[in-house]
Amino acid sequence: MTLEYFEPIRRRVADTLRAFLDEKRTELARVGPMGSRAAERLRDFSVRGKMIRGCLVHLGWALARAGAPDAAGDHPGVVAAGAAMELFQSGLLVHDDIMDRDPVRRGQPSIFRQYEEQAARDGATDPAHVGQSLGICAGDVAYFLAFDLLVRAGLPGASLGAVLGLCARELAAVGIAQMHDVAWAASAVTVDQEQILRMYTYKTGRYSFSLPLLAGALIAGGSEELRAGLDDIGQSLGLLFQLRDDELGLFGDEQQTGKPLGSDLREGKKTILVSLLLDHAKDEERVRLQGILGGPSCTVDDLDFVRRLAGSPAVRDRVRGLTGGLVQRAEQAVRALPTSAEPERAVLRRLLDFTTSRGQ
Amino acid sequence: MTLEYFEPIRRRVADTLRAFLDEKRTELARVGPMGSRAAERLRDFSVRGKMIRGCLVHLGWALARAGAPDAAGDHPGVVAAGAAMELFQSGLLVHDDIMDRDPVRRGQPSIFRQYEEQAARDGATDPAHVGQSLGICAGDVAYFLAFDLLVRAGLPGASLGAVLGLCARELAAVGIAQMHDVAWAASAVTVDQEQILRMYTYKTGRYSFSLPLLAGALIAGGSEELRAGLDDIGQSLGLLFQLRDDELGLFGDEQQTGKPLGSDLREGKKTILVSLLLDHAKDEERVRLQGILGGPSCTVDDLDFVRRLAGSPAVRDRVRGLTGGLVQRAEQAVRALPTSAEPERAVLRRLLDFTTSRGQ
Repeated sequence: MTLEYFEPIRRRVADTLRAFLDEKRTELARVGPMGSRAAERLRDFSVRGKMIRGCLVHLGWALARAGAPDAAGDHPGVVAAGAAMELFQSGLLVHDDIMDRDPVRRGQPSIFRQYEEQAARDGATDPAHVGQSLGICAGDVAYFLAFDLLVRAGLPGASLGAVLGLCARELAAVGIAQMHDVAWAASAVTVDQEQILRMYTYKTGRYSFSLPLLAGALIAGGSEELRAGLDDIGQSLGLLFQLRDDELGLFGDEQQTGKPLGSDLREGKKTILVSLLLDHAKDEERVRLQGILGGPSCTVDDLDFVRRLAGSPAVRDRVRGLTGGLVQRAEQAVRALPTSAEPERAVLRRLLDFTTSRGQ
Repeated sequence: MTLEYFEPIRRRVADTLRAFLDEKRTELARVGPMGSRAAERLRDFSVRGKMIRGCLVHLGWALARAGAPDAAGDHPGVVAAGAAMELFQSGLLVHDDIMDRDPVRRGQPSIFRQYEEQAARDGATDPAHVGQSLGICAGDVAYFLAFDLLVRAGLPGASLGAVLGLCARELAAVGIAQMHDVAWAASAVTVDQEQILRMYTYKTGRYSFSLPLLAGALIAGGSEELRAGLDDIGQSLGLLFQLRDDELGLFGDEQQTGKPLGSDLREGKKTILVSLLLDHAKDEERVRLQGILGGPSCTVDDLDFVRRLAGSPAVRDRVRGLTGGLVQRAEQAVRALPTSAEPERAVLRRLLDFTTSRGQ
């Protein structure tokens, strides 16, 4: 993450997370020794994140707060709410990794794998199942702790209910979008681009960008007009982020992305890029592509073949068209946003550049 | 459930759940078709429950409300909060069934099995894994919807934050207790009775009884003294409930309990009863018992053998001692509860009888 604006906020979010989870170590130890270990695992896992969501709460707050009589200074609840977003994200990732069977996350064994390794050391009869089960519990605990943190954030007035309700609704939608992602990848169904974009919107767009921006704006008591603008900007940013993710999965630097090239193909994920490739492939190309998707292996030759398809002028035009439309829409919404917080408006523009050009 | 007092409340909780999840069918359909199906599955699953927790919220409310100037009438938020408890319970059960590989719950295929069957029909390559993954998502969605419902319940004043915080903290503790239950069952560790009782306290006692009673009392603005009493009563009730569960797992009627006899033994669960049996078994009996625990099969002979051990005077004495102490403690706390709600105090007494003598 190259956004310097976020650096000091990121540090505060991380400090809040660390302090909260250290406190929970003691509290959960009352249930049993796995309580303190779970809090430690969640702490070490969470603070390794990029914390974009946590910082976006603060950005939404600053955009809505500008010009208010008590605009100076800061509200500790904003940072705590940001930390809660990061804990939600940890819970979702812990569960995601079980579903995608991802052994590594954020440069370390994923949480369910940590439990699996522990179970193997303890001589469990089925360490894989124990690891999955404890991973499910750990993700659940992360969600509940996130709600706990939100409640304790000391949010002003009616914003507690508004923020909690927003989180609950958007996270339920994430769960449903994830269901589609899983079910589509597991079978040979054809999914149209409108469906995939809808899945992206709820799985990444609204959740990762609109939700934290809106949470911050709600805490600041931002106007409905401002919130509608942030909602819209968040959705475009999120879709652009996800489209870039698809690209990086094919053309990125494995060292930077932390994700093996072609893993989306191997998992049979129904990405927009794959859908465009299928649209534009010739008959025999389509047959080969369909054989690669969700197949047991994706060779270097296969990857080269898919990259060649993705590099064709027709596909590149479609990607550019989609991306260009979203950028234009977001730029306009950023310009029209009813705020006097010009430095924060500039941050939104930089975020837009970042999501479309990032290498990780 | 033989408690007539709860019948009208149970119906209202069920109606609220049904109406809420029907509304969510439409809302989640916006994400994709799996959204409405998930809401339907959660609705049909939730309304089949006994709804003790949902009713206990109302009981806690009535105990705290008695004598207040506006004690007559009802608060719709109390019923909605009860419905939210049932949704939390649904989420936990959906995840539990994945961990315990339980194919049936509440007389129907468990949720992850429903998804597994669907995936098999859709020709998925690994229906078992797809079923587990979608089950994880469905449980997550249930939690988030429960928080959504709580926020929308229109709870009075500061009670929203208090109730949400209580739920979040107790549910996090449930997650940790469940971790111990899973990890202990999977390995041959020896766990002492104090640890097991602690696990029961957080997995069942506080969560199933103290939490809903306290939530109701918080909504009614009940005194700290009353809440401390309810907390204590809830814990005793919950432990008694769990101890009876252990017994029913060995001596119950499979038709009534809906659980195959000896399943705790087969799963190697570290129950209090098993721990007492190990304490009192002679050397050769202990060897045989340890072979049965978590072993691949538990024959009719094995079950008879374990029942004989459990029927020995020494073990029965220990169980009676444990149960008797809890009953005494609960009776005293019920007597001392600072409330003028005598019919509701009588319900607490009937609950105590029910938890110790129930056949299902």
